Amino acid sequence: MAATTLSLLPPASLRRHNPRVHLRPKFSIKASAPVLTQDDLKKLAADKAVEYVKSGMVLGLGTGSTAAFVVDKLGALLKSGTLSDIVGVPTSKRTQEQALSLGIPLSTLDAHPHIDLAIDGADEVDPSLDLVKGRGGALLREKMVEAAADEFVVVVDDSKLVTGLGGSGLAMPVEVVQFCWNYNLVRLQELFKEEGCEAKLRLDGGGKPYVTDNSNYIVDLYFKTPIRDSGAAGREIAALEGVVDHGLFLDMATAVIIAGGSGISVKTK
Amino acid sequence: MAATTLSLLPPASLRRHNPRVHLRPKFSIKASAPVLTQDDLKKLAADKAVEYVKSGMVLGLGTGSTAAFVVDKLGALLKSGTLSDIVGVPTSKRTQEQALSLGIPLSTLDAHPHIDLAIDGADEVDPSLDLVKGRGGALLREKMVEAAADEFVVVVDDSKLVTGLGGSGLAMPVEVVQFCWNYNLVRLQELFKEEGCEAKLRLDGGGKPYVTDNSNYIVDLYFKTPIRDSGAAGREIAALEGVVDHGLFLDMATAVIIAGGSGISVKTK
Repeated sequence: MAATTLSLLPPASLRRHNPRVHLRPKFSIKASAPVLTQDDLKKLAADKAVEYVKSGMVLGLGTGSTAAFVVDKLGALLKSGTLSDIVGVPTSKRTQEQALSLGIPLSTLDAHPHIDLAIDGADEVDPSLDLVKGRGGALLREKMVEAAADEFVVVVDDSKLVTGLGGSGLAMPVEVVQFCWNYNLVRLQELFKEEGCEAKLRLDGGGKPYVTDNSNYIVDLYFKTPIRDSGAAGREIAALEGVVDHGLFLDMATAVIIAGGSGISVKTK
Repeated sequence: MAATTLSLLPPASLRRHNPRVHLRPKFSIKASAPVLTQDDLKKLAADKAVEYVKSGMVLGLGTGSTAAFVVDKLGALLKSGTLSDIVGVPTSKRTQEQALSLGIPLSTLDAHPHIDLAIDGADEVDPSLDLVKGRGGALLREKMVEAAADEFVVVVDDSKLVTGLGGSGLAMPVEVVQFCWNYNLVRLQELFKEEGCEAKLRLDGGGKPYVTDNSNYIVDLYFKTPIRDSGAAGREIAALEGVVDHGLFLDMATAVIIAGGSGISVKTK
């Protein structure tokens, strides 16, 4: 695994348009450090990720706030003619609508089963570049598209880094069929007894079970301590009958772009 | 694995009521062998399976023509008082309705996550007692209930025996999410290239995709030669994103009751 840290200084184009990222004031004695918001960091990382894109590629388009910056940038590069002849395979209806509004040609896995490069955000990244994803509810489509990609570039800000998956204390989603969902909820909780796991059925705004695009439910797992062996965990969860998919994205990311206070770093496998 | 072959002669009760199963004719010189139909064989095997049932058990109730004979027999034994205090967990709506009509108390995996004994038919049985099941479309619910059982007794007539799974040339079902189903159909066919696999989307009577109880599609796999390594096949199919379940029931059956021309035989692991 290799890590490189790039300059914190954003590109000139961003400095021009963002009042928070200003050049050194003319009459100041001390230079004031540029103050970057979380969104600035996401945008910088997204721009870096788009450097992996070449004309003619079939691209997996992720879902979420960071992925939205990627799609924006792709649209701009297509419009300017810097990129041409790309086809996007969106991982959600939301991304599909955004890409369409920007004039990015779209397709599906059925028509384009081979993806050159997928770019997406993540909820957690561990030191081996294994991920937790899918808190937004699009986990199955994201996993199908990203598993079909030759290269999978993940874009995060440094708040998403964990020493072990599950370590953020936030939800790790598991998509289950509606039939006997509580039976599977109890089995999932039992599986991670040693990690102090609490399993909860995800509800929608109205207090009813949240239903995925595939008509399934989501059981969210909350861990007190990180998952000890994420490889074994992935296999054990997948082996439960009635589990459709889970938020552990293991051995899939080929590069992770991390935006933080000390700049943009890229980790590759 | 132990095999025992029992007498071909059906019990007296059956001989009395079935004109095809007659006693030796009084005035004949030569004894005529009893002629048993496929249904007679299924019923004999079902009766044998019900011998495993004890009062107080939680029972997984299978789906299909042979399983229906099992449910009939259970209803009769409850009515006669030979059995009492049993609870059935049905694997389909059809079985649920049959059991209810016979007065068998029913429950679900949510309420009874531990099943003492499940009894069901199978589409194929190989020499290791591994199975193909689910041609009837209830495969996920069958697998969930039968995997939760301490003992799983399978009841078949001898036409279901194969030297290797997939060897009957009939469908091996795989339940997939509707999203990009064709992508998964192609991947499944590729997985079994060496077995000459042909993958087909299951259609309903009207030519539209058949939709399971869980709102998924079924891809039926047809093999020219049996699956070489069913264990590896099960893992590889389950690892495909978007696959919900498959018809390989591996290392689950604890006993198989086989009805054939030479009698009833029981194979155990």
